[in-house]
Amino acid sequence: MPILDKDMTLCVSLSARPSNIGTRFHNFLYDELGLPFVYKAFSTDDIAGALAGVRALGIRGCSVSMPFKEAVIPLVDVLEPSATAIDSVNTIVNDHGRLSASNTDYEAVATLLDQHRVDRSLPVLVRGSGGMAKAVVAAFRGAGFDDLTVLARNTSAGRALAERYGYRSITGLPTTGHGVLVNVTPLGMSGADEDALSFPVDLVEAAEVVLDVVAMPAETPLVRSARAAGTKVVTGAEVIALQAARQFERYTGVRLTDDQVARASSFSRASAPG
Amino acid sequence: MPILDKDMTLCVSLSARPSNIGTRFHNFLYDELGLPFVYKAFSTDDIAGALAGVRALGIRGCSVSMPFKEAVIPLVDVLEPSATAIDSVNTIVNDHGRLSASNTDYEAVATLLDQHRVDRSLPVLVRGSGGMAKAVVAAFRGAGFDDLTVLARNTSAGRALAERYGYRSITGLPTTGHGVLVNVTPLGMSGADEDALSFPVDLVEAAEVVLDVVAMPAETPLVRSARAAGTKVVTGAEVIALQAARQFERYTGVRLTDDQVARASSFSRASAPG
Repeated sequence: MPILDKDMTLCVSLSARPSNIGTRFHNFLYDELGLPFVYKAFSTDDIAGALAGVRALGIRGCSVSMPFKEAVIPLVDVLEPSATAIDSVNTIVNDHGRLSASNTDYEAVATLLDQHRVDRSLPVLVRGSGGMAKAVVAAFRGAGFDDLTVLARNTSAGRALAERYGYRSITGLPTTGHGVLVNVTPLGMSGADEDALSFPVDLVEAAEVVLDVVAMPAETPLVRSARAAGTKVVTGAEVIALQAARQFERYTGVRLTDDQVARASSFSRASAPG
Repeated sequence: MPILDKDMTLCVSLSARPSNIGTRFHNFLYDELGLPFVYKAFSTDDIAGALAGVRALGIRGCSVSMPFKEAVIPLVDVLEPSATAIDSVNTIVNDHGRLSASNTDYEAVATLLDQHRVDRSLPVLVRGSGGMAKAVVAAFRGAGFDDLTVLARNTSAGRALAERYGYRSITGLPTTGHGVLVNVTPLGMSGADEDALSFPVDLVEAAEVVLDVVAMPAETPLVRSARAAGTKVVTGAEVIALQAARQFERYTGVRLTDDQVARASSFSRASAPG
């Protein structure tokens, strides 16, 4: 990278515990494309002060992660449909002091369902009921899926999520097959749960498509199991790369090619997690 | 520079209209020393919001320029003696949320008077009465100069500045010689005043030392006139480099060599001004 100068545009991420993926993804592409931008992740415990700084410093773009995705809603000026669909923000664009909030997780899942031509008539089983599960379930609803079941350990959270989008919820693993299996829990994520398979093998073998939102590692036990069974797979690495690409495009106005997204994603994931 | 990662420490400058000098000075040395820091100038019209961002984002260091040098005083936690001496802040260091304010302009002028062994018994004539003039006059007072005259077009500002530090003020150019001439006006600065000589040649020829605080260009008409007369010269480029070096050392904890300061200063000034 060149020595930075004063006219570089800063984009940031805000979370309690940032990963390095976004910082490396965006800076890799700024460097490759020669854009006068710089990106840096920040950890904060004061989201209102951080957004005051975004406004006062003219920070162009702001990725929002845990635990601020809902807290930023009253602090922005415009909520776009992708954010209102799930009451959750992961992206803020600053146009000369006017902050517009959207959710590129929602957009990325919707895009991947299209790109992978997932059959809308298949019954879908979504495991999880947190913020990302809401983005996923809303994206299935927006894409026209009519048959979806939310599987959640937390009964009330699962029911609330399912009912909001006109679906049903269950609390125990079903035995009948679902054409689409979606994991939105930490099961399979590097750390304590990295060996956990989020769906039993017989369900995986009966499915046509498996989507795992766990991004690190990309090759979770669920993904490996699905590949072994010949099931079509959409990985969390694809979700996170695509949502970052949508952020990149909003911040810079530059449209990325699939190859650029793939190489930035590969670079961003090459360092140790955390 | 390497691709930035999330753990880089950010330092910034805040002003209404930043120059590029600080950004280039600091980033040059971060790069050369391999420090995990990044520096960027910001323009803002909301200093309170900007400092809320400095706190919330954990921005390590913050250079403060026009018009915020006094406005930040009630917004910090600690005022160091260099700032209280002149009621003006140009540097804020953030130690885990505790903001300490100091003034490295004052420190730099005091250091240069020492380094150049300027004779404390010489009568001093300071032209100007703005914020930087206060840093200069206070530094002469702190260094033990007893005979100093403030020359200011603005009668009340000149008198207030002189009286605060126990000196006298005048409004017209004197005819008698002063051993030390100091320009703290924009006369000689690139732009409308770049051809203006801030002191008449006969005063320059009668002086032993000339200090010009104008930093861009370093070779002002006053500096050129003093060099031609064989008068000792301290340039604004030296002042700005030394004050930036003091900021660098506070932010990073790394002590710079004279050679490092000189090369960073040269690099920082190599681009077009503005």
